[in-house]
Amino acid sequence: MQFVESKFAKHMQPINGSAIREIFKLLAKPGMISFAGGNPSNTALEPEVVSDLAREALEKYGATLLQYGATDGFNPFRESAAQFLRGSQVNCTADDILPTQGGTQAFDVLLKALIDPGDAVLCESPTFLGAIQAMREYNAKLVPMPTDDNGVIVEAAEELIKQHHPKLMYVIPTFQNPTGITLSLERRKALAALASKYGVVIAEDDPYRDLRYSGDPLPSIQSFDEEGWVVYMSSFSKYIAPGLRVGAAAVKNPLLRRKMVIGKQSADTHSPLLNQAIVDAYIRKGLMPAHLARICGDYKKQLSAMLDCFKYFPKGTTHTVPQGGLFVWAGLPGGMDAMKAFEAAVAANVAFVPGTHFYPEGGHENTLRLNFSMCDIPTIEAGMAKLGKVISDM
Amino acid sequence: MQFVESKFAKHMQPINGSAIREIFKLLAKPGMISFAGGNPSNTALEPEVVSDLAREALEKYGATLLQYGATDGFNPFRESAAQFLRGSQVNCTADDILPTQGGTQAFDVLLKALIDPGDAVLCESPTFLGAIQAMREYNAKLVPMPTDDNGVIVEAAEELIKQHHPKLMYVIPTFQNPTGITLSLERRKALAALASKYGVVIAEDDPYRDLRYSGDPLPSIQSFDEEGWVVYMSSFSKYIAPGLRVGAAAVKNPLLRRKMVIGKQSADTHSPLLNQAIVDAYIRKGLMPAHLARICGDYKKQLSAMLDCFKYFPKGTTHTVPQGGLFVWAGLPGGMDAMKAFEAAVAANVAFVPGTHFYPEGGHENTLRLNFSMCDIPTIEAGMAKLGKVISDM
Repeated sequence: MQFVESKFAKHMQPINGSAIREIFKLLAKPGMISFAGGNPSNTALEPEVVSDLAREALEKYGATLLQYGATDGFNPFRESAAQFLRGSQVNCTADDILPTQGGTQAFDVLLKALIDPGDAVLCESPTFLGAIQAMREYNAKLVPMPTDDNGVIVEAAEELIKQHHPKLMYVIPTFQNPTGITLSLERRKALAALASKYGVVIAEDDPYRDLRYSGDPLPSIQSFDEEGWVVYMSSFSKYIAPGLRVGAAAVKNPLLRRKMVIGKQSADTHSPLLNQAIVDAYIRKGLMPAHLARICGDYKKQLSAMLDCFKYFPKGTTHTVPQGGLFVWAGLPGGMDAMKAFEAAVAANVAFVPGTHFYPEGGHENTLRLNFSMCDIPTIEAGMAKLGKVISDM
Repeated sequence: MQFVESKFAKHMQPINGSAIREIFKLLAKPGMISFAGGNPSNTALEPEVVSDLAREALEKYGATLLQYGATDGFNPFRESAAQFLRGSQVNCTADDILPTQGGTQAFDVLLKALIDPGDAVLCESPTFLGAIQAMREYNAKLVPMPTDDNGVIVEAAEELIKQHHPKLMYVIPTFQNPTGITLSLERRKALAALASKYGVVIAEDDPYRDLRYSGDPLPSIQSFDEEGWVVYMSSFSKYIAPGLRVGAAAVKNPLLRRKMVIGKQSADTHSPLLNQAIVDAYIRKGLMPAHLARICGDYKKQLSAMLDCFKYFPKGTTHTVPQGGLFVWAGLPGGMDAMKAFEAAVAANVAFVPGTHFYPEGGHENTLRLNFSMCDIPTIEAGMAKLGKVISDM
């Protein structure tokens, strides 16, 4: 008998993988300038430092690092992750920390703990593609929340809560992916209050928080939560190295943390101990502040160069002016289609992600996401000039 | 509003975590002799080797190992994993390999790809606790298959297939956890034929395969499969180090592999590259054969010592005589209760896992699982003498 697609679980049948990961295949073309990814700069990565920390950790802990570990996590890492997150205005102790495979797994085990097929989840629109895919795999009903230049519009979110009774709200509060927008202080307080008032868990996905190039840092939504409704999801992917796959969720509610641990037991038993020990040592040795200062200094200049280059784009193009993160979000004027621009751009050796992919409900074909962290300044200038010409020529 | 347990997804509400992980908490007691775990011996782990391989990999690949990687896997690892598995009589090329977080994640993404709530899954009874928990989290209907000293009874399995129309069959063919039993050659062929005849995917979970201390190695079920129905799940946890969390699934069916990759995208984006590179180098440098020979030499003596020590147990105790792996399975005579024995044994500072936990349908209170890899021979003798006395005194 031949395998047929109808064997797949119903919720998995329509899911054909990340549009971005398909776009990545086009990037192998020689000479391609890519504003499509969301990777840190290669110059931000430190293979020699990681090598030294791995050696020191294996000398210090020996076979312990190679044995099975607790699903709850490697305690030295939980301590240093909690210390790091407290410095980022997150309210937590080591006991609240669940190590995860990047921020991705934190959201996956949270969905596993909470979502029955058909349950409503509120999310920003546009939002992170990976999160849209994850929610669909749990057969959640995605309810897009209206946003403006200060993030989620709280009054609209409250109406949607009353209407859809969601178990979960997914928010990227700082330098949002894909828009680069930051949720204001007042709205952070208001969302925490909504969570508590209506009994909605908030997944606060905050992996860009410490990539700030201007303005003042803001407290997390989680810091205003007194009853344990907010799960704060951090990641060391953008700060140290995505390839290590080390994230940390701060989960103050012990019932919810325990259920996430149980979900993680069956997902991967535990996170690799060597990787947790490397990140632990990185934080414990105090390497993070100088490293973040260095990479933020570089990214700030790259962002500034990209923003300057909108002069090459047709009149009427709008774009965000983020205070940090990795992305700028643009809107083309007069009904122009970024999907068509994408084809012409790739032919001219420059790539971005059409914005429509980030909307759970589709549409918004005039939008696009541009990443500035992976190109140096001359490349940003050359790529934006090319892209501006391609779009102007349409 | 306070968080209440009814917020949890329905299938997660009754799941309270691994019984074994609860037993582990008792093992911290000073002087405890534990036959409860399933860990490799600490003497089998090689922190200095891993440290050297990590350094070499980071020198060779540099920032590439710290960037985002493909969900499909790190190609050098896929090549060496395929080479290793071909040596274990698995039919595969690098393109068939999906790197996973131990064998655990391979099964998790396979369940995600296939199982709708209520779908039947056939499994051995008793079987691996972690697999039982994973199947329950996907709300599968577990259908236990009768087994004997040669593993799954094929005729009974065929009847159950006709009756329950399962999408999936979960089998641990070699030195099974918990029984230590090995599926015979004829039955391997027959199960592959059943899969193809009825369109049932077989999850062949084979993490102990190369821990063989006597008898001849057998080809995998997968090697008899001509249509891509068998997913072979291997792991380097028992061969190199569980703490690294590196496994490999060989999935010849491209539709199924693609859907597993999509499930993994949302689960953890990709497996950490450094860990894949360490295992790749371990295999590529040819370290595996001598390492397996050394640890199998040790484990063989430990197994033999444990088998000898059943002389301390009451007359009528039965036990398996495995040709490899990490476990011996015993049955106490005359309606004795291993759960009660467990309490008395822990009080006397010796631990095991009561066998009832391994049965999806419960019962079988007279059975117990004993691990021999984590204790040296004098400790095995002391612990078995104590345990035999506790049981005889009941």
